[in-house]
Amino acid sequence: MQTAAAVSEPAGSPRGLALTVAEVRLTPILIADPPLLNTQGVHQPYTPRLIVEVVTADGTTGVGETYGDTRYLDLAAPLAEALPGHRLADLNGLADLAARVCALPEEVSDSVDTGGLRGVQTADKLRLSVVSGFEVACLDALGKCLGLPVHALLGGKVRDAVDYSAYLFYRFAEHPQGRGESDDWGAALDPEGVVAQARRFADTYGFGSFKLKGGVFPPEQEVAAIRALAEAFPGKPLRLDPNGAWSVETSLKVAGELGDVLEYLEDPASTTDRMAQVAAGTAVPLATNMCVTTFPEIRDAFTRGAVQVVLSDHHYWGGLRNTQHLAAICRTFGVGLSMHSNTHLGISLAAMTHVAATVPNLDYACDSHYPWQTEDVITRRHVFDSGRLAVSDLPGLGVELDRDALAALHRRWLDDDGSMRDRDDAAAMRLAEPGWTTPSVPRW
Amino acid sequence: MQTAAAVSEPAGSPRGLALTVAEVRLTPILIADPPLLNTQGVHQPYTPRLIVEVVTADGTTGVGETYGDTRYLDLAAPLAEALPGHRLADLNGLADLAARVCALPEEVSDSVDTGGLRGVQTADKLRLSVVSGFEVACLDALGKCLGLPVHALLGGKVRDAVDYSAYLFYRFAEHPQGRGESDDWGAALDPEGVVAQARRFADTYGFGSFKLKGGVFPPEQEVAAIRALAEAFPGKPLRLDPNGAWSVETSLKVAGELGDVLEYLEDPASTTDRMAQVAAGTAVPLATNMCVTTFPEIRDAFTRGAVQVVLSDHHYWGGLRNTQHLAAICRTFGVGLSMHSNTHLGISLAAMTHVAATVPNLDYACDSHYPWQTEDVITRRHVFDSGRLAVSDLPGLGVELDRDALAALHRRWLDDDGSMRDRDDAAAMRLAEPGWTTPSVPRW
Repeated sequence: MQTAAAVSEPAGSPRGLALTVAEVRLTPILIADPPLLNTQGVHQPYTPRLIVEVVTADGTTGVGETYGDTRYLDLAAPLAEALPGHRLADLNGLADLAARVCALPEEVSDSVDTGGLRGVQTADKLRLSVVSGFEVACLDALGKCLGLPVHALLGGKVRDAVDYSAYLFYRFAEHPQGRGESDDWGAALDPEGVVAQARRFADTYGFGSFKLKGGVFPPEQEVAAIRALAEAFPGKPLRLDPNGAWSVETSLKVAGELGDVLEYLEDPASTTDRMAQVAAGTAVPLATNMCVTTFPEIRDAFTRGAVQVVLSDHHYWGGLRNTQHLAAICRTFGVGLSMHSNTHLGISLAAMTHVAATVPNLDYACDSHYPWQTEDVITRRHVFDSGRLAVSDLPGLGVELDRDALAALHRRWLDDDGSMRDRDDAAAMRLAEPGWTTPSVPRW
Repeated sequence: MQTAAAVSEPAGSPRGLALTVAEVRLTPILIADPPLLNTQGVHQPYTPRLIVEVVTADGTTGVGETYGDTRYLDLAAPLAEALPGHRLADLNGLADLAARVCALPEEVSDSVDTGGLRGVQTADKLRLSVVSGFEVACLDALGKCLGLPVHALLGGKVRDAVDYSAYLFYRFAEHPQGRGESDDWGAALDPEGVVAQARRFADTYGFGSFKLKGGVFPPEQEVAAIRALAEAFPGKPLRLDPNGAWSVETSLKVAGELGDVLEYLEDPASTTDRMAQVAAGTAVPLATNMCVTTFPEIRDAFTRGAVQVVLSDHHYWGGLRNTQHLAAICRTFGVGLSMHSNTHLGISLAAMTHVAATVPNLDYACDSHYPWQTEDVITRRHVFDSGRLAVSDLPGLGVELDRDALAALHRRWLDDDGSMRDRDDAAAMRLAEPGWTTPSVPRW
């Protein structure tokens, strides 16, 4: 799955303008993912990601990463085809190019995917998620060519390290039917399990705040888990995220019960309308990475006060520069900002860290799935120190592609029978609970 | 008025990080300005500007330009003192640095300067106006060092040329008491004079849209001038800008009379509150460079629908990157965007053109004072072709400082008795109309 084209340097143009893309490599991979539970089901043993490599005429390679489900691959392929000849620094032109060359799969329509975990699914958002991988790869290559870290290409870091939060999950000890890789975390299906998981996160990585992925058990059980965390880690910021599984009434009930210990409540209810109703009835800040994941959703949500914190995800928003624009909008409208994390590898974590370092109004520790990902495609894994990641000052992202690892994970993708190439948490759950279907919303 | 300091390159850092400021030169100048009328009075024969030069360790010089009144110079001096050692690419750090080192003049308070032409005057805005000159100088130097045009440092141009609008003024033939420089434009004090001026603008520069600075004569006379323009240039976009001189009632009356020919009505009334009242009563879009000139003013104005177009001025907003953030906010909230222009030289016009080229939602032709400025500090003046300026692909801004011209204009500043070093349109008007004071608002 490679696209290549030779490009000649425009005669007489300044050196900078000659920093053009000569070749693009797309490598879909499957990476191990533990049996983490959410309101839709359970993570599959392997989840798809797409690694984007942009190679310049002088052989410099920049890397990016994005979602790897089939519909993303279908959009990435024509963009990769069209990119040779594109100037690395022409980041503004990437979305336009994608809009021109990427035909959208027929089944994608501009409608809210209420059952999904990634918020609204519009044609633009799908394209932007693909563009983000290319933008990061271009920034990485540009930084390497110019001798500048990505944060410097984004206007410069305003902090030397970025705070991350422990991302706790209810989980099985093993994948249903013993599939996939095994680990030594054990099950976490009750308050005790959650606290034990949190303690290991705190001990191993030094995280000082905790987010629990909820929407798995009836709210009172999850309230009990948060209470247990509050007792185990007094004074530490706590968050609960049921992925929109609750009604307005349930959301308000939980907010009332946990208001004294929650830093914020994340997507208690789905849709801006329900979030606005919840916000009107509680002083607990509401965070979202579901009802505001695109620019067109901002106006309504912000003017109605539906959300108090946006958890940005540079994949959704179309890259690092759009993330900075989002940050500016949040600053201007008095809405808090932090960052969302989905299953991803070290390239995306590096990208997150660079952009997070440049945003003055990073009001909360960012989410990070990263500790759950034991496989990677970079030679030196990121290491959390006191819950923080140092911001790299090396040229580009500061990561190096591990080609052997990439090849092995790509081989897994090639060998897959198709069942893992598109994330489907409900399908995975059916192996544990036959007949399981994606719950309708609100679930409680 | 120079600040210099030797800076050693951080040992072992990548080349990019060593791109630091070694020296800063500040040169206040006085530039010729014709006797253009506005609601406050008349332009003085000379107006102050500040030229900022940032010199890197390897001798590369970047240039910027901003307001040159004393209060800006007072803020620029300590920033220039503090800048050596600052990394060129650390643009995000400029405002923080300025906030740390620039003591604010005592008379500046965070209050609306309703009589002024530059909108609200807050401590932050004054500082940002100074920062903008330094940001542009750093971008110019960085671009030259990296071989990239400024637009590429801003994510890349999305257009190859930027549209500008003819900026018509009521004016005297000569400055009161024959001061200053003379020109051959003659007076424009009635509809015929305005149309003649517009025709010369159209013939000489190819402008296809026209803005009349109003607030000078009773509204019915300015309505007549716009009508005359509409007749002389059928179908061409027209704008009228009385700088907030009108009451809500007068604004609505004019909007009603000119609704069929106006592209937009600019700052008919001062304050967001009055603008919101006007907006509620007319379908004519309202533009502003007075009631929304800072980020803190956006939320109220946008949520109330007080303005439909923001005329950005990168000096007010703190530079080119903040202008891009403003553009993103406007896009997101469905507010139009164009650009304001004050008396400035070719450096600022180059900066405007670069950032304008990168903004997808540049909805209207930008204002430009430039044709009124016959003096400059660059070796090759910008030339409008069909009302447009081509976007330079040369490294940096693509302009070269004319040191002889700079020295001569600085000499004029040094020789001035102080009467021109702070813009005062009312003082200039008193020479024509003894006893003239800045009119209170609303004037009509």
